[in-house]
Amino acid sequence: MTRLDNSRRIYPPTGPERTAQSWLTEAPLRMLMNNLHPDVAERPEELVVYGGIGRAARDWESFDRIVETLRRLKDDETLLVQSGKPVGVFRTHADAPRVLLANSNLVPRWATWEHFNELDRKGLAMYGQMTAGSWIYIGSQGIVQGTYETFAEMGRQHYGGDLTGRWLLTAGLGGMGGAQPLAAVMAGASCLVVECQESRIEMRLRTGYLDHGAETIEEAMAILDRAKAKGEPVSVGLLGNAAELLPELFSRGIRPDLLTDQTSAHDPVNGYLPIGWSVAEWFERREREPDAVARAARASMAVHVRAMLDFQAAGVPTVDYGNNIRQMAHDEGVGNAFAFPGFVPAYIRPLFCRGIGPFRWAALSGDPEDIYRTDAKVKELLPDDTHLHNWLDMARQRIRFQGLPARICWVGLGDRHHLGLAFNEMVAKGELKAPVVIGRDHLDSGSVASPNRETEAMRDGSDAVSDWPLLNALLNTASGATWVSLHHGGGVGMGYSQHAGMVIVADGTDAAARRLERVLWNDPASGVMRHADAGYEVAVACAREKGLDLPGILG
Amino acid sequence: MTRLDNSRRIYPPTGPERTAQSWLTEAPLRMLMNNLHPDVAERPEELVVYGGIGRAARDWESFDRIVETLRRLKDDETLLVQSGKPVGVFRTHADAPRVLLANSNLVPRWATWEHFNELDRKGLAMYGQMTAGSWIYIGSQGIVQGTYETFAEMGRQHYGGDLTGRWLLTAGLGGMGGAQPLAAVMAGASCLVVECQESRIEMRLRTGYLDHGAETIEEAMAILDRAKAKGEPVSVGLLGNAAELLPELFSRGIRPDLLTDQTSAHDPVNGYLPIGWSVAEWFERREREPDAVARAARASMAVHVRAMLDFQAAGVPTVDYGNNIRQMAHDEGVGNAFAFPGFVPAYIRPLFCRGIGPFRWAALSGDPEDIYRTDAKVKELLPDDTHLHNWLDMARQRIRFQGLPARICWVGLGDRHHLGLAFNEMVAKGELKAPVVIGRDHLDSGSVASPNRETEAMRDGSDAVSDWPLLNALLNTASGATWVSLHHGGGVGMGYSQHAGMVIVADGTDAAARRLERVLWNDPASGVMRHADAGYEVAVACAREKGLDLPGILG
Ligand SMILES: NC(=O)c1ccc[n+]([C@@H]2O[C@H](COP(=O)([O-])OP(=O)(O)OC[C@H]3O[C@@H](n4cnc5c(N)ncnc54)[C@H](O)[C@@H]3O)[C@@H](O)[C@H]2O)c1
Ligand SMILES: NC(=O)c1ccc[n+]([C@@H]2O[C@H](COP(=O)([O-])OP(=O)(O)OC[C@H]3O[C@@H](n4cnc5c(N)ncnc54)[C@H](O)[C@@H]3O)[C@@H](O)[C@H]2O)c1
Repeated sequence: MTRLDNSRRIYPPTGPERTAQSWLTEAPLRMLMNNLHPDVAERPEELVVYGGIGRAARDWESFDRIVETLRRLKDDETLLVQSGKPVGVFRTHADAPRVLLANSNLVPRWATWEHFNELDRKGLAMYGQMTAGSWIYIGSQGIVQGTYETFAEMGRQHYGGDLTGRWLLTAGLGGMGGAQPLAAVMAGASCLVVECQESRIEMRLRTGYLDHGAETIEEAMAILDRAKAKGEPVSVGLLGNAAELLPELFSRGIRPDLLTDQTSAHDPVNGYLPIGWSVAEWFERREREPDAVARAARASMAVHVRAMLDFQAAGVPTVDYGNNIRQMAHDEGVGNAFAFPGFVPAYIRPLFCRGIGPFRWAALSGDPEDIYRTDAKVKELLPDDTHLHNWLDMARQRIRFQGLPARICWVGLGDRHHLGLAFNEMVAKGELKAPVVIGRDHLDSGSVASPNRETEAMRDGSDAVSDWPLLNALLNTASGATWVSLHHGGGVGMGYSQHAGMVIVADGTDAAARRLERVLWNDPASGVMRHADAGYEVAVACAREKGLDLPGILG
Repeated sequence: MTRLDNSRRIYPPTGPERTAQSWLTEAPLRMLMNNLHPDVAERPEELVVYGGIGRAARDWESFDRIVETLRRLKDDETLLVQSGKPVGVFRTHADAPRVLLANSNLVPRWATWEHFNELDRKGLAMYGQMTAGSWIYIGSQGIVQGTYETFAEMGRQHYGGDLTGRWLLTAGLGGMGGAQPLAAVMAGASCLVVECQESRIEMRLRTGYLDHGAETIEEAMAILDRAKAKGEPVSVGLLGNAAELLPELFSRGIRPDLLTDQTSAHDPVNGYLPIGWSVAEWFERREREPDAVARAARASMAVHVRAMLDFQAAGVPTVDYGNNIRQMAHDEGVGNAFAFPGFVPAYIRPLFCRGIGPFRWAALSGDPEDIYRTDAKVKELLPDDTHLHNWLDMARQRIRFQGLPARICWVGLGDRHHLGLAFNEMVAKGELKAPVVIGRDHLDSGSVASPNRETEAMRDGSDAVSDWPLLNALLNTASGATWVSLHHGGGVGMGYSQHAGMVIVADGTDAAARRLERVLWNDPASGVMRHADAGYEVAVACAREKGLDLPGILG
């Protein structure tokens, strides 16, 4: 078993010539390789795509064997991949998936990192994360888009969909948090991000995710004011400690229009700078006395959350962005820490109720023009969705492709299959240079059970019921997706989630059109169903409007 | 939500006329109803089929809605059932399953009885057991057959396949254990069962599962001796306490040919009579001082296991039959309690390695003659399998049908699809009065991860890896099974297992033949694959012999 091979450089084939027997097998082959493209994967030499140790294949031998098998796989055969290892080829039929994957699944009682790591050391396991082990990761475009959608939904809920002249206050410019200023500006809002490390501010300035740096509150507010006068959103990184600056901003009477936080509060030892400490001191004491650091960090988080609660009490829409800061403050005695909601129940769930989620596609040709043509097609088919048009324009302008050109767009039930059919027609007519693959993140409307994030606080209390993602995977298999996956532990780690992925190829054939119509309808519809069953009126209304047949739910 | 309705009596329709749009939907309808047939289900008025609270539908409203939906379901539609509730109908295609079910699945961290019960009380869950919630339970024939196969495999491993003149010593004539004397006799061995309750012995005598009762060792041994002289197997129930009688038998120099135990040792309060106690005393003290009873029972189990170890040391093949008695004795200080193996690793796994497991079919006509005709067909197609012929003859003679007539036969990869195709042809030619359904238990070669039972002590340590049953369900869906299910917690309870079921209809059409050929090959083949991957030579040899294409395993 070879897990590290520094000599390996993987690039997917591009262009209109196949290396496999059909596009239905060429597609997973290119997308597997794309996951390990040097511009896409975090540590490609170790097969790690993203998210800690999220891999695309169990080891290099398995990778080579998968490639070999996909190259010879016939149109009525299906390859089974078990935690990144190709274990079997079986005869199925033309409308069945070409690849079925199950990664990192463990019987619940043994579903811990300890047991997983033991299996992993023996070569019996692989952590698949969400889109790493299911071959549909497309780089950081996904993070920007997810954050953009959250901010846009905040705008819709609190400001009638128009964030012009408004501003968001947050903290943290790390791996995830760094997307906040760009996403806010894309959504039409200005953004003030408090960040304690100068290097993080500089990095985000350099890559164009952040517009300005500032050292004082005055300086930062002046930039925001000028932008407001011009009617143009702007982003500012303010150097400092959020636990110090938030109370200060509050006491000065400054009121943002939206408030959140993306410091790494979930990790009190390494993720949160205590009040009054220098960054150098923090780094140094982290090693020597981690418990003391954690204690100090937690106490500071309590101050931070109290300030957030003050802003909320003053009418500022406030949300926890999945970093567990409410829990930390609560443990420190802030009894009403959970007075502001988590971001999924507050902002993402209304989208999930309509089957809206991280829909995406990639051009197997490798040609950016193919994506620009599909961008234009999306605008043509959804002419009234200014929010979406805005995203497409901004994405083209500000987000660099990584590996095979790809696009992510949060669209829902009723739109997804239209787009898929249109792309398929473009392939048929030769308007695109090669077929496209269409998929989504596992974090989607009907495909995940994850009680600490995606299914937190479901209305009926069904947070932990994982029948839903399992049914989603079975349904996509029955509908004719090109590959389907079932994972455990993605996003929140071992024991905490189960989820399903699907990808389907638009190769321009009529057979593909029939499959696309079924899969890209059924997949988001199963998400609407799941939320309707939980009692969300938006989902029930959507189900009725779209004519879904939900016997036990709609009656 | 109505869970108890004493007015309901469910009988499946029988005969050649459909009440649904096709046999692919009539079949799940009849089998769901059959699971609730008064002769099949344990508490039909509560929808409980077997195994504690294993249900066929979540509540009576769901049952009615499922029936209604199956009656109208079209040939290109698929019904989704979530923990016994019909949640959606989706357009798929003719070769897709007509029903997809997921029952009792929970995200691992919440996969406990406590959380399940909480959901169950709210009407959000249903315990599906294995074949209860997946509509392919066929009554106690399955228990007799499973026990018969275990005893037959013991005979093959230790006595060249011939148990003539041999005898098995065991204890316990309860719900499961009561099958032992009949199964032993069917396998060709005599059987001495120690049972402490006279009522249990009488019950088994009355139903023909047991041939004789005895009050003393002398009396019992005389019956065994007479039978041996005649060359005919016989069964005897010996009234007494196993923990007293086993050491006594040993010290008298009596040596059985096989040794096991099915007292309810897993439950020391209610399941095991302590040495020196009367049954009346036991019943009475159980209520008043459960802890004292458990202490006394455990001490007696240690004595019992020491006797079993003595027999083993004297050369008697000895096995734990899944009642946890080794663990109990070990906790009492019997250091070498695990010197004898569990029954799955010892006797069932070699069968699983060849894809052999609890294959079964049912006659939708309701006519026993249909089963007798398929019995004859099995004999015709497998002319050399005397073991199987024996089972078929004995089953016909001694096992009463419950609900729709059905047959269970442990056959494996290479035989299952032949039988399925032959049955389909019989339907086509009008040799059977109506179509048959073909399925299996979830406890099968490739369909279960259950580290305390079916996947205990896997050679490579992959006991808890549940990718395998998930892949099995996806593959059966892709191959065209008529219904496919994914369950959690069957057999061993919440947190301890994940497993998949499948049923396929032989309606006599060519389309069904193509599906049968794929499904009844792929399903057992996936079990051979799972065991080959774990390193079992028998499975590797079987995979090579049958020409399986296992890239990462066979190379
Ligand atoms: N919402 C989501 O979907 C989602 C997804 C993944 C992660 N998260 C959570 O978001 C948080 C941020 O993730 P990340 O990947 O950006 O983490 P990261 O560790 O890369 O970045 C955290 C940043 O916060 C800064 N910081 C720490 N303490 C500070 C303080 N007191 N004042 C100002 N700045 C401070 C750090 O210098 C660092 O730059 C994590 O808790 C993570 O778990 C949310
Ligand atoms: N092998 C398998 O696949 C499998 C499946 C299910 C259950 N089991 C296990 O098998 C065991 C038996 O199951 P069951 O359903 O028959 O249980 P049960 O409780 O119905 O029957 C147990 C019987 O043992 C008798 N008994 C108790 N103590 C005794 C003693 N000291 N001497 C003699 N007889 C004694 C009881 O009177 C009773 O009749 C259980 O532990 C069960 O968990 C095994």
